[in-house]
Amino acid sequence: MKKRILSGMRPTGKLHLGHYLGVLANYVKLQDEYDCYFMVADMHALTTKWNESGSIRDYRHEMALDWLGAGLDPQKSAIFCQSDVPEHAYLFTLLTMITPVSWVERNPTVKEMIRDMDLKDNVNLGLLSYPVLMAADIMVYRADAVPVGKDQVPHLEFSRELVRTFNHTYHVDLFPEPQPILNEFQRLPGLDGRRMSKSLGNDIVISDPPEVTAKRMMTAYTDPLKVRRDDPGHPEAGCVIYEYHKLLQPDTAPEAKTQCEQGCLGCVAHKRSVAAMVSERLAGFQERRAVFAADPVLVDRILAEGREKASVVAAETVRMVREVMGI
Amino acid sequence: MKKRILSGMRPTGKLHLGHYLGVLANYVKLQDEYDCYFMVADMHALTTKWNESGSIRDYRHEMALDWLGAGLDPQKSAIFCQSDVPEHAYLFTLLTMITPVSWVERNPTVKEMIRDMDLKDNVNLGLLSYPVLMAADIMVYRADAVPVGKDQVPHLEFSRELVRTFNHTYHVDLFPEPQPILNEFQRLPGLDGRRMSKSLGNDIVISDPPEVTAKRMMTAYTDPLKVRRDDPGHPEAGCVIYEYHKLLQPDTAPEAKTQCEQGCLGCVAHKRSVAAMVSERLAGFQERRAVFAADPVLVDRILAEGREKASVVAAETVRMVREVMGI
Repeated sequence: MKKRILSGMRPTGKLHLGHYLGVLANYVKLQDEYDCYFMVADMHALTTKWNESGSIRDYRHEMALDWLGAGLDPQKSAIFCQSDVPEHAYLFTLLTMITPVSWVERNPTVKEMIRDMDLKDNVNLGLLSYPVLMAADIMVYRADAVPVGKDQVPHLEFSRELVRTFNHTYHVDLFPEPQPILNEFQRLPGLDGRRMSKSLGNDIVISDPPEVTAKRMMTAYTDPLKVRRDDPGHPEAGCVIYEYHKLLQPDTAPEAKTQCEQGCLGCVAHKRSVAAMVSERLAGFQERRAVFAADPVLVDRILAEGREKASVVAAETVRMVREVMGI
Repeated sequence: MKKRILSGMRPTGKLHLGHYLGVLANYVKLQDEYDCYFMVADMHALTTKWNESGSIRDYRHEMALDWLGAGLDPQKSAIFCQSDVPEHAYLFTLLTMITPVSWVERNPTVKEMIRDMDLKDNVNLGLLSYPVLMAADIMVYRADAVPVGKDQVPHLEFSRELVRTFNHTYHVDLFPEPQPILNEFQRLPGLDGRRMSKSLGNDIVISDPPEVTAKRMMTAYTDPLKVRRDDPGHPEAGCVIYEYHKLLQPDTAPEAKTQCEQGCLGCVAHKRSVAAMVSERLAGFQERRAVFAADPVLVDRILAEGREKASVVAAETVRMVREVMGI
């Protein structure tokens, strides 16, 4: 029997090229090897965006389109919204009963979010508790594994600890300890060279039309010493365009590097050609996405079917947990 | 239209005479005036008894029998288990998103529980969050009011604050601010004169047979200066039996007081006569309770019907809350 995995993304913005090449391409591959549960983590979005209610619903729909366009296949995987499967909240509530407050207070990710958002004493209970909700997401499907980036392995440790605590407290073997499935894809830089992120305003949105992307690409950071085409460039010194080129067309990258260094390839021309590579890479995605975007009823049906499939496992888990916890 | 109220009790032990005369008698009265939702708060029981799983299920059933025996009427009121209506957990999860951590940390009841249980740094997230779960219990039925004892009015303030916060944050008028319905019944002393409580071992369990109760009554605190029948007694000086007498038979209490003071009524005799009053008061209750105890299928059906009735309102609330919060 295939091992089960759970993964999800928060619908707090439009997905960008980093998500596409990093996370979504990986999801698509995982579908054949694993029994996959992919959730649009809209309840998690509330931990930080509780007062931007309108946007979550929009981004949730956009995210479903991005996922389907990228090749997530409802025939293979359960694709659903977290809030549509009430067992996430139910298991979360039960898990709070066995989670020491100190565990969440000392959780590095929680601390980081509080610092990043400059929240200090204005932290909501939902944000503080978010690692428990994440554990509930994983545990409600009794997932064997979770795909994670290299830097996210510690995040998973919290869920593993909670699994051990549950099994130990109730003398059962109900939950497997979820294993990390390492995604080796390296982080894509944003247009300004920092990590790509919507909040930094340096992202390439995958659902944007090619002309918008081409325009955005023109703002990318390149070698500031190369002012004119025939100046010798230093593509290894943080040129974002060269980074994209290596990832999108590794075969032709060395030649471009040489031309740039020798003053035979100008930044504008290079930006144009890499923008074309991006458009080319996203062409199939955007075509499929458009089909789903034109048929909201179909998308709703896919999410409803995903919810059905997810609910079967989730309800079974909650039934067992209630039995074990005595309620 | 009748106003809606919500109340519940934690199934962490057998109900005693204090519950019966104080809480249950009040519930029975409220049924005619209000649209009542009475929940066996088994999720709340987990906040402190998460590792005593077996007992909650037993006490839950006993509590349902006590309630039905006392005269809670499934034709009038929704009688159900909290854990059977998943919307409590769902709304709890959503409310954590708008609840500042500082509110629960500074909550006097939470602090008191932590102190009473000597938990210090071993507090679980479920215990810390319990005021939010309580608010969810009330809000999921959009309850207009909550019956409370005089000392519990501050407990309700947390829920009222959360109602205001929700309505204000989302610019809606979805939840009414729940009003306290003051229960004037004074607290019944336990057999040793302290407050009656299972954990203090000084309670009179209402489901115990009369002979057990009679035996327990013999251990009650009476005037230590009255050693023999003809010693003059001081019934006002903390005599528990006299307190019970006043509550159970206010008409005959003054005469007993005089007799005790004059040395014409011994403590043993007085204990016997008050024990008889207790049995008499509980006779109808125990008879009705026995009928339900003999028919577990009926009790299950009553709880299932209560759940159905509760679920209709709870599901409607959650649907509206999701709409408002944008998920």
